[in-house]
Amino acid sequence: MSISVDQFKQGMRKLGGAVNIVTSSHDGIRAGLTATAVTSLSADPPRLLACVNRQGATYDIISRGRTLAVNVLGVQHKDLAMRFAGMDGETETERFDDGHWSSNGDGAPILSNALVSFDCEVDSIMDVGSHGIVIGNIRSVIIPDGANYSPLCYADGAWARLEIIE
Amino acid sequence: MSISVDQFKQGMRKLGGAVNIVTSSHDGIRAGLTATAVTSLSADPPRLLACVNRQGATYDIISRGRTLAVNVLGVQHKDLAMRFAGMDGETETERFDDGHWSSNGDGAPILSNALVSFDCEVDSIMDVGSHGIVIGNIRSVIIPDGANYSPLCYADGAWARLEIIE
Repeated sequence: MSISVDQFKQGMRKLGGAVNIVTSSHDGIRAGLTATAVTSLSADPPRLLACVNRQGATYDIISRGRTLAVNVLGVQHKDLAMRFAGMDGETETERFDDGHWSSNGDGAPILSNALVSFDCEVDSIMDVGSHGIVIGNIRSVIIPDGANYSPLCYADGAWARLEIIE
Repeated sequence: MSISVDQFKQGMRKLGGAVNIVTSSHDGIRAGLTATAVTSLSADPPRLLACVNRQGATYDIISRGRTLAVNVLGVQHKDLAMRFAGMDGETETERFDDGHWSSNGDGAPILSNALVSFDCEVDSIMDVGSHGIVIGNIRSVIIPDGANYSPLCYADGAWARLEIIE
């Protein structure tokens, strides 16, 4: 017994998430994409995971360069999120003209005004069908000073902000 | 070079997420916990993943029974989310007195009025430090009729709802 791709998509659009830009670099080539499929994995050792489609340049650069950064976006980054989702028509290596990007040495691109960025070395990659589960060893956590905390979310086909409830 | 557990926690609290109850059952014993570390993995074959702490009963039941359900919570489920996070002091097998639960045969507990529930068979489990990455093959997607879509989120140490932005 299994379900159709349509049933999968209808279900998954109900699973909302914070929006991130996942990046990598190798030999001077940068690549990145917008992703909600990122989670904390373990505190000790400090690790996270990101699920990345194996058909794109970002997966390829991650595999070769073993660098990974997760940049957590704020509501002010909606246009950047759309750009890194491919809505401007740029390939995964052509999207860095917008946004303020830096890096830690040979590391992956870090978005200067993200809510938080996790700079990682790739620990391992497990390929599971269309996607790879990329496990990153977090080597630094960057929280910009004075960042106003209003995360960008995506759920049920729409962009959203959070509103605290009691 | 690595980071401290405190640095990890400070960073991860900025990564918001939708709130889910992850459940399992085996030999009539049910267990569950509140988790944000759930993501879509692949549409074909239909798979998701959940990161589950290896020290609890839920992990144990998942490992033995190979059943897994992910129930995506709405804002009306905040008390249930707190209960399944252990805030009522109940163990992971004692939390099902609250909420309306059913199951598909020998499958994992399904919350009747979740925003969506994914009923899975466990494909594989990869242990990575304190947590296991549980990969589920989705065998059915349950979306209750007429469910009002207002997902429960957790970010920066607070419960939150979503507000659509243009």
